[in-house]
Amino acid sequence: MIQPRLDETHDPSATSWVESANAADTDFPLANLPFGIFRHDFEERPRVGIAIGDRVLDCLAATRAGFFHGVDPAIRDALQSWTLNPLMALGRDDARAVRRVAHRLLSAGTTEGNRAQSLSADILASMSAIGMRVPAEIGDYSDFYASVFHATNVGSMFRPDNPLLPNYKWMPIGYHGRASSIVASGTPVRRPRGQSVASPEGPPSAGPSARMDYELEVGAFVARSNRQGDVIPLSSAEDHLFGLCLVNDWSARDLQQWEYQPLGPFLSKSFATTVSPWVVTLDALEPFRIPAFVRPSTDPAPLPYLNDATDRARGGFGITLEVWLRTAAMRAAGRPAERLSCGDFASMYWTLAQMLTHHASAGCNLQSGDLIASGTVSGPDAGSRGCLLELAWRGQAPVTLSTGETRAFLLDGDEITLRGWCEREGFRRIGFGECTGEVLPALA
Amino acid sequence: MIQPRLDETHDPSATSWVESANAADTDFPLANLPFGIFRHDFEERPRVGIAIGDRVLDCLAATRAGFFHGVDPAIRDALQSWTLNPLMALGRDDARAVRRVAHRLLSAGTTEGNRAQSLSADILASMSAIGMRVPAEIGDYSDFYASVFHATNVGSMFRPDNPLLPNYKWMPIGYHGRASSIVASGTPVRRPRGQSVASPEGPPSAGPSARMDYELEVGAFVARSNRQGDVIPLSSAEDHLFGLCLVNDWSARDLQQWEYQPLGPFLSKSFATTVSPWVVTLDALEPFRIPAFVRPSTDPAPLPYLNDATDRARGGFGITLEVWLRTAAMRAAGRPAERLSCGDFASMYWTLAQMLTHHASAGCNLQSGDLIASGTVSGPDAGSRGCLLELAWRGQAPVTLSTGETRAFLLDGDEITLRGWCEREGFRRIGFGECTGEVLPALA
Repeated sequence: MIQPRLDETHDPSATSWVESANAADTDFPLANLPFGIFRHDFEERPRVGIAIGDRVLDCLAATRAGFFHGVDPAIRDALQSWTLNPLMALGRDDARAVRRVAHRLLSAGTTEGNRAQSLSADILASMSAIGMRVPAEIGDYSDFYASVFHATNVGSMFRPDNPLLPNYKWMPIGYHGRASSIVASGTPVRRPRGQSVASPEGPPSAGPSARMDYELEVGAFVARSNRQGDVIPLSSAEDHLFGLCLVNDWSARDLQQWEYQPLGPFLSKSFATTVSPWVVTLDALEPFRIPAFVRPSTDPAPLPYLNDATDRARGGFGITLEVWLRTAAMRAAGRPAERLSCGDFASMYWTLAQMLTHHASAGCNLQSGDLIASGTVSGPDAGSRGCLLELAWRGQAPVTLSTGETRAFLLDGDEITLRGWCEREGFRRIGFGECTGEVLPALA
Repeated sequence: MIQPRLDETHDPSATSWVESANAADTDFPLANLPFGIFRHDFEERPRVGIAIGDRVLDCLAATRAGFFHGVDPAIRDALQSWTLNPLMALGRDDARAVRRVAHRLLSAGTTEGNRAQSLSADILASMSAIGMRVPAEIGDYSDFYASVFHATNVGSMFRPDNPLLPNYKWMPIGYHGRASSIVASGTPVRRPRGQSVASPEGPPSAGPSARMDYELEVGAFVARSNRQGDVIPLSSAEDHLFGLCLVNDWSARDLQQWEYQPLGPFLSKSFATTVSPWVVTLDALEPFRIPAFVRPSTDPAPLPYLNDATDRARGGFGITLEVWLRTAAMRAAGRPAERLSCGDFASMYWTLAQMLTHHASAGCNLQSGDLIASGTVSGPDAGSRGCLLELAWRGQAPVTLSTGETRAFLLDGDEITLRGWCEREGFRRIGFGECTGEVLPALA
């Protein structure tokens, strides 16, 4: 058992004057307090918010009401911004200070809590009355491939004789993704058109993707930047990680298969990537640390810059991750979404800190607000596979739904929802909210 | 012969009251007028500039002096920004309007020219007294692979039995690059550290890259954006291209070889990419259009969305491109740089418009200020190979320099300078300025 670094914000007995935050099944109890960017109905300008139950603490309003008078002026400025980048740039200690203040003012029975409750009409918004944005201006988006189960499954489909390439166990394989097409949860996603082939040598034809897929991933936002040319030692890598969200890295498998050699995925991924709007801080996740995936003893030890027993012991996060599908037929019949898979983030071969350290190891500057995603989270069991490509095994074993429908790949009208949460004896359950998007038909 | 779309800015007999702009060998005559972002010694805030001879027209000062009173207020606002993004977002017609005003006010013997000359102390800066910046806030950087000669050369080294992959002649192959590490010409570049292998199966060791290389490329900045999910027809693709610059896509070949499967280059490219500071508009390049590279008749015709005879006829640009090397020994001996290669941008297999149209074809939104690079420009001749990997054939045929030194890959202290220019009978020669960077030793 690892001793988590706990403070008063992790106290499971604390209750909030926001009643919905005390429900056992809320994603956003007092112990979570994730950051996001929201927009009021009555105003164009986005604001920093903190989720609490089914409400949002309006940080601009709360700052103006004096609740953050005790923190550094730079923090107050960051709380009045229209993105999380300034808060992310300040670093984790300052974000922790905000979280502690928010915890006090949202707690029941404290002096600040009583005052905040009396001003609740000014400083709280209902989640049903606001719109959520992508939480940061994402300068660069990098996507890893850190589940050895995903890499092995996909590799065995495309390279049966050579599923896992020789580099896989030596470094967190990753690539640059597209930042411009990252959208907030709830945004519909248009099915892409592109080139695909019936035989590996071509010729291709152009048309709507027939193999559209989702990918269940966890994303991490960069806190402090490193300067170009400087590395980030593994021992301090987590200081550069602000918090986590859910990521659906939509993929067009037919486009991907034809285009990806030799420079990697391009248009098959760049049409859209959906992120959940709430950034769960590493502080909130502290009670849910578990040792990272234990490598088989036959696997090589990482090179020194990626090798740190402390990181392996502390660097896993026990996050239950689910994928839900609601088809157009389910909606028409008034049926709820149906769960496709359930896995755990702790099954990843590389820790987030290893991904970040490797990313900066050649001198690449990672900037506040940049997004690093884990790659598809698939576990060892068939039920924990994080994309349809794996679940339906390249279309060979379509998934049968309770409606009698089957899915080899996504159809128009399918709505995919990712969910994630953490539970541990003695702690409040916390969650990530939803990362959702519906597939629209391709343009004619 | 293609009829270029000419206006008064292409008149070769026009002269400027800025004497240095009338020299036959200047890159920046009155017929060029490229845009850039510069910073005065006396002020932090960057400004929009237009190169003229060895001077820069300070667009903020010129706007305040009333020289742009005739243009749309949105244009005047863009000229007072600290990046080129607002001007790029306005689109090519508005940039053309600015270019025409600048041409008049920098011309000798016109009313505006006389007034501008009388105010030259206020509106002109000397290039030697300013610093140049990356010309736009680059949201996303995409790098193509559009020279079939480069692709064939490199492919034959890494896949001798299969040099050119089946997809190559069907689509402009590209990948997402790293935007954060793009630097302006003149910025030293630190040799990256990373993993490399002696045998393809590993095991790897970590250390400074022993195979650092440059890549000679042409970059294009996006003008108008397309909305996510919308495509850009080939016939209007050039409306989305603001102008061109030179790009050195520094590469660590040993890191690249080990990491690039299956997701493409990552750390081997993301440590630094250098851009030349002046963006030469497509309008200035108009006289230098030539038909795009003629594909062998055995090559497939592109699919309809990439097939447009007008684009092939107008879409090539005759740009002479050179790479120069100055080693530490040359500097110590007071010797000038030495030319490594000379090629032409017209040798590319795909046009810039085809690259842009393909990029957006699955719905990816390209935003104003985004950078698209061509990939290494190599021609059919050995002397036109655009990187050392090709020139020295993977280290097997090191290049011998006039000092007696040899180079298989770059050594610390090597300074690489890219140059590009256009010449055509009946027109003024125009150029791109320099794209330069010196290799610093790796961190210990």
